[in-house]
Amino acid sequence: MSAVKVALVGASGETGQSIVNGLLGSQDTKFDIVALTRPESLEKPANTNLKERGVKIVPADLRGPQDEIVKLLSGIDIVISAIYFGSLADEVLLANAAKIAGVKRFVQSAFMIILPPRGVVDFREQKENNLGHIQSLHLPYTYIDVGWWYQLTLPRLPSGRIDYALPKTQDNQVIGLDGNIPSALADIRDVGRYVARIITDPRTLNKKVHVYNEIYTRNQVYEVLERHSGEKIPREYISENEVNTRIEEARTALNKNHKDGDALSTFTVSQLFRSWGIRGENTPEYAAYLGYLNGKDLYPDFEFTKFEDYVKEVLEGKVKGVYQTKK
Amino acid sequence: MSAVKVALVGASGETGQSIVNGLLGSQDTKFDIVALTRPESLEKPANTNLKERGVKIVPADLRGPQDEIVKLLSGIDIVISAIYFGSLADEVLLANAAKIAGVKRFVQSAFMIILPPRGVVDFREQKENNLGHIQSLHLPYTYIDVGWWYQLTLPRLPSGRIDYALPKTQDNQVIGLDGNIPSALADIRDVGRYVARIITDPRTLNKKVHVYNEIYTRNQVYEVLERHSGEKIPREYISENEVNTRIEEARTALNKNHKDGDALSTFTVSQLFRSWGIRGENTPEYAAYLGYLNGKDLYPDFEFTKFEDYVKEVLEGKVKGVYQTKK
Repeated sequence: MSAVKVALVGASGETGQSIVNGLLGSQDTKFDIVALTRPESLEKPANTNLKERGVKIVPADLRGPQDEIVKLLSGIDIVISAIYFGSLADEVLLANAAKIAGVKRFVQSAFMIILPPRGVVDFREQKENNLGHIQSLHLPYTYIDVGWWYQLTLPRLPSGRIDYALPKTQDNQVIGLDGNIPSALADIRDVGRYVARIITDPRTLNKKVHVYNEIYTRNQVYEVLERHSGEKIPREYISENEVNTRIEEARTALNKNHKDGDALSTFTVSQLFRSWGIRGENTPEYAAYLGYLNGKDLYPDFEFTKFEDYVKEVLEGKVKGVYQTKK
Repeated sequence: MSAVKVALVGASGETGQSIVNGLLGSQDTKFDIVALTRPESLEKPANTNLKERGVKIVPADLRGPQDEIVKLLSGIDIVISAIYFGSLADEVLLANAAKIAGVKRFVQSAFMIILPPRGVVDFREQKENNLGHIQSLHLPYTYIDVGWWYQLTLPRLPSGRIDYALPKTQDNQVIGLDGNIPSALADIRDVGRYVARIITDPRTLNKKVHVYNEIYTRNQVYEVLERHSGEKIPREYISENEVNTRIEEARTALNKNHKDGDALSTFTVSQLFRSWGIRGENTPEYAAYLGYLNGKDLYPDFEFTKFEDYVKEVLEGKVKGVYQTKK
């Protein structure tokens, strides 16, 4: 069987790296990957590393002449966008070119938890608008959302023992309501392996798909980490009203200065938290209500990293964290 | 079996009337209908007629106190909104009240042809925004789109013989491209009967559904009408560029005066025509791509009026037209 040709945008991001690993490691399908890279990023170490692993790195300016993007995409079977969320507007240009080039499947940069398409998390609406644009092009698509990463899930231990594995910008974690809100989790390392399955699966064409590993409440997360670490973790609970206040304060700050990075971060993180930590929307049930296919039904044989095994790995000092540089 | 309690908004409109007929005529299910009616419309002849047929008419101001709407909806199983498209913003208030009242299924005012959710027809975006709002409420829903009405499909005959059956505001019909674009049609009289099936069907909960009778191209429509009438109908073809020009000219006029009724009508009709008459989006294939269930799969036994039989009825002087008053 000939290789499936994939063009990937955002290959050096956290999701992009997992996708590269998932595609290159696939036993079922051979993938040839072209990473469309901003010209100014060609010489970054991440891209040198990709090149060594057989990924073709090509410079591409999505805002440049459309003809050039179309040329890059001609002969490509599948386009995957794992574009940085600040650049979502450029994804529309990528989709236009993909349509002209005759790409057979376009995977936009979703790769988020399950959220209401509108009204709860502002930036989710932009993803829905991009989906609407793709649909107005009649471009074959798959929309993939994934569980909240294990790598973003753990609270700090009082000893500081697992700080090495946590995002550098991670605040103290708070617990929504009584801590019994379920939320679908995934290991970022598994995401790319799910993607490799989904994009070659005819059942997922023109569908939304939800892939996740396991469902945990915050109380269960704390319990597992306490049991394996032997440490007692202080718990700070937060009400819906308190989260709403955080969001509104951040919104006010952003209205005063839309470049206020701290406010933007608080705004986005708090809006996401309100959905998964308070409203309980990051679940297979809400995904089904929204029309997603469930990865557990599609791939019952998929071998994923169990959350409890991830916690053990973290405590053994073996994992690599995500977002290890302050932005 | 006890009756299914339905609250209907917009009962006196074309779609609303068909829904009343479809529910009251159902052999499978007994429906009790409450028509929520604007206080100023209570004494309209249409509402007197509904009352005589066993529909309960209750005054309701959707912009009034929410408590009152919630009270009206308590005990209601299904809310159907066939609200006038100029009042779509009020549908959000209706959905909020339905959520609080514990309504089991909310059917928003879709009832349009299949259109891209965004980017091609402006007012379709408002329906998609309302769907997004409903989904942010976690309110059980069904989104129903229907074929282009037979009643809006026929061109005038040179003899004027079928003018009685055409909308009073109907312009000369034009034919998109070469006339071979397929489009899904439905008899408005069948729409309510489809709705009666859909809203009691567990398979359609939290889904989009597309119901239509038959697929016709414009050339086929003209051929059927010519064959049965014995008249030759002049044909005026129009290109995509010409339609785009009409849309842009109407948009310019609307930007100057957003109350320009003729411009709004041209704008909306031309945007719709571009989709069904040029882009060929009003088809089961495009509906499937957008994630709709197909009524033909759901109800293969559904007995509908064939287009050719409708044409014969029209020529026999037997039908009642839609939009018989100039607005």
